Amino acid sequence: MPKKNAFYAQSGGVTAVINASACGVIETARKHKDKMGKVYAGRDGIIGALTEELIDTSKESARAIAALRHTPGGAFGSCRYKLKGLDENRAEYERLIDVFKAHNIGYFFYNGGGDSQDTTHKVSQISKELGYPITCIGIPKTVDNDLPLTDNCPGFGSVAKYVAVSIREASFDVASMCKSSTKVFVMEVMGRHAGWIAAAGGLAAENKGDAPHIILFPEVRFNQTRFLSKVKECVKKYGYCAIVVSEGVRHSKGQFLAESGTKDAFGHAQLGGAAPVVAELIKSKLGYKYHWAVADYLQRAARHIASKSDVDQAYAVGKAAVEFALAGKNAVMTTIVRTSNTPYRWKVGEAKLSRVANVEKMMPASFITKDGFGITPRCRTYLAPLIKGEDYPPYKNGLPQYVQLKKIAVKKRLDAGFNIKQ
Amino acid sequence: MPKKNAFYAQSGGVTAVINASACGVIETARKHKDKMGKVYAGRDGIIGALTEELIDTSKESARAIAALRHTPGGAFGSCRYKLKGLDENRAEYERLIDVFKAHNIGYFFYNGGGDSQDTTHKVSQISKELGYPITCIGIPKTVDNDLPLTDNCPGFGSVAKYVAVSIREASFDVASMCKSSTKVFVMEVMGRHAGWIAAAGGLAAENKGDAPHIILFPEVRFNQTRFLSKVKECVKKYGYCAIVVSEGVRHSKGQFLAESGTKDAFGHAQLGGAAPVVAELIKSKLGYKYHWAVADYLQRAARHIASKSDVDQAYAVGKAAVEFALAGKNAVMTTIVRTSNTPYRWKVGEAKLSRVANVEKMMPASFITKDGFGITPRCRTYLAPLIKGEDYPPYKNGLPQYVQLKKIAVKKRLDAGFNIKQ
Repeated sequence: MPKKNAFYAQSGGVTAVINASACGVIETARKHKDKMGKVYAGRDGIIGALTEELIDTSKESARAIAALRHTPGGAFGSCRYKLKGLDENRAEYERLIDVFKAHNIGYFFYNGGGDSQDTTHKVSQISKELGYPITCIGIPKTVDNDLPLTDNCPGFGSVAKYVAVSIREASFDVASMCKSSTKVFVMEVMGRHAGWIAAAGGLAAENKGDAPHIILFPEVRFNQTRFLSKVKECVKKYGYCAIVVSEGVRHSKGQFLAESGTKDAFGHAQLGGAAPVVAELIKSKLGYKYHWAVADYLQRAARHIASKSDVDQAYAVGKAAVEFALAGKNAVMTTIVRTSNTPYRWKVGEAKLSRVANVEKMMPASFITKDGFGITPRCRTYLAPLIKGEDYPPYKNGLPQYVQLKKIAVKKRLDAGFNIKQ
Repeated sequence: MPKKNAFYAQSGGVTAVINASACGVIETARKHKDKMGKVYAGRDGIIGALTEELIDTSKESARAIAALRHTPGGAFGSCRYKLKGLDENRAEYERLIDVFKAHNIGYFFYNGGGDSQDTTHKVSQISKELGYPITCIGIPKTVDNDLPLTDNCPGFGSVAKYVAVSIREASFDVASMCKSSTKVFVMEVMGRHAGWIAAAGGLAAENKGDAPHIILFPEVRFNQTRFLSKVKECVKKYGYCAIVVSEGVRHSKGQFLAESGTKDAFGHAQLGGAAPVVAELIKSKLGYKYHWAVADYLQRAARHIASKSDVDQAYAVGKAAVEFALAGKNAVMTTIVRTSNTPYRWKVGEAKLSRVANVEKMMPASFITKDGFGITPRCRTYLAPLIKGEDYPPYKNGLPQYVQLKKIAVKKRLDAGFNIKQ
């Protein structure tokens, strides 16, 4: 049997370390050239597989591939495109198999979150059904940290580190000025459904009185009275109040704070931003001068302050995906298994895709303090190792040197095109 | 003549490196104990001098003082408090001299921007007049880079580096997703009057097509039609458009973009934020999906990504202030003198306070491209060395270790208190 090529794609929102996983996949495949052919990457994620726009990673130098380890974003392009169920759009799956067949692809590595793991699972099923069985391995990725059966998700640790470092630094600034100027600082972070990222801000508060003093979680409905009273208490006690607010915080009736009535110059609702809403509320009710920041993409792209644990794990789950495939495993996702907290130790494990698909891991209630404004020691024990270590990219002229690949296209072999319905 | 003590205070908005200047002052004074007494720091800036709340820096360990070099914010507290003119509030100046006399203070080191240099100048004049001459040396500091007679201002280089690194990273993110998702990213940076910080974002665009594609300067009035057409062109050409917008950008009639009609839930104007206004404009007129970030204090507190040039210079201007004072200089500000661009070389110089006070250095028109959306090669030549080099703080458990001083108070010697009018 001639050796098969591999397909790799990045899916969903990218992270500071998803390219480290790509690096792990490609470098490991290159080490096993006797058993695995070329690695073709999907241009713009799975869309590239459907439209037969494949990138030949063998045309990239070893140096360029190595540089993926320290480059943020998705080097091959990613997309938010969810394949429908088999019954709803069988044509998409059949097209995938056609493309894979045409390019002698026998391995499918899909690097993404819950939806992507679901797709990986379906491809594995239908490829068998269609008589062209493909080895399918999922590679976990999400800043939201919401995949089940893995201790944590590559991508999360680096956002967590960025958030903890940033709120600590900004709080040193506010603390200096609070006597005569800004007394409240509000920093908004990602996490529409779960408070993992907001919780990471809590890591900065190592000692009593340290910032952040308040965390607003999407898991805890916003109570204006209790919140304002806590802000007032902090300003009294510490001279200032530093707040981390998740974009996903909701009023008691379920409406996002970020949507609560902000209107732009054109009369459109929702300029977005929970932070300005919270800040303005404090100003109007308590009179404190405020500043606010919205980190947005800066947080998930901040490769310059990536967590070494995170980079190492992102690489490892990519590397293991290739090794698992070559060892004959199929329809599994590589996972991180924590084997010890102190010292922090972990290894790569596996989870059946059938058990991963469509399950969202929420933050345990035991991770949030009773008053709803902080993280518990248990949460800290879980989060702390994930931001451990620094892994600085190389710099030139004061700027990080991130790689842009050549992305040379593989020649198309199919006559038919394919229309993407977006 | 018994040796005199020194007074040091931090003024105005703090920076990632103002403590490096404090470190330079204190370490250098300690080296000259034979000639200079203790360094007393003003608690919360000049307010501490008026209220006789002095911090005895001799009670801080050598290790703690050394750690100031890598700690952001203002370790002794800062304030936005401008002393009035001599005629308007002579009592304040007289009070300062009373406090300095009571504590045998013969040196006044004031670390701040334009207003602070003006104060330093006035203290030098009135102290002579009142028969208690004090050696007054200004130490430059401002993220705004708007002090005259110095090549650049300590504090600016680190913000510049943060902004250039951040827009580069976020743009890698957007570029990955633009095929099917976000096409426009807007990042708001500081600079109400001058576009130095926004210009620094331009450093990330080293090659044609690199982000940021558009910079909105406070120096260039906002032209909606031209702006939108440029955004459209970029999306067509590069697939996405990355924009750096200064908080100080104004409409043609002079109104800040940030104020253009945003109203919060309580009907208050100005939730703040030029970025959301620009982003929403693009969405409504061109239909592109957007993301936006407001860096706010994160940018000026980001010691974790400080520029080594900046840290070195911040330290040097503090060190030189003490050396100048001991050499008999008076009523000068320490400055940075650029002696070569390639390789970058600089030394510490001096400028008369009388020439520094109340002069704002604006960005030369020759630094902005003709279309008003970018920086010229000349601007790049000026800015590039300022972000050179990395100077990482020490980390423990994944977090930067910033020092919090003991801040032990010097015993008050005056019976009378002093009311600060704020």
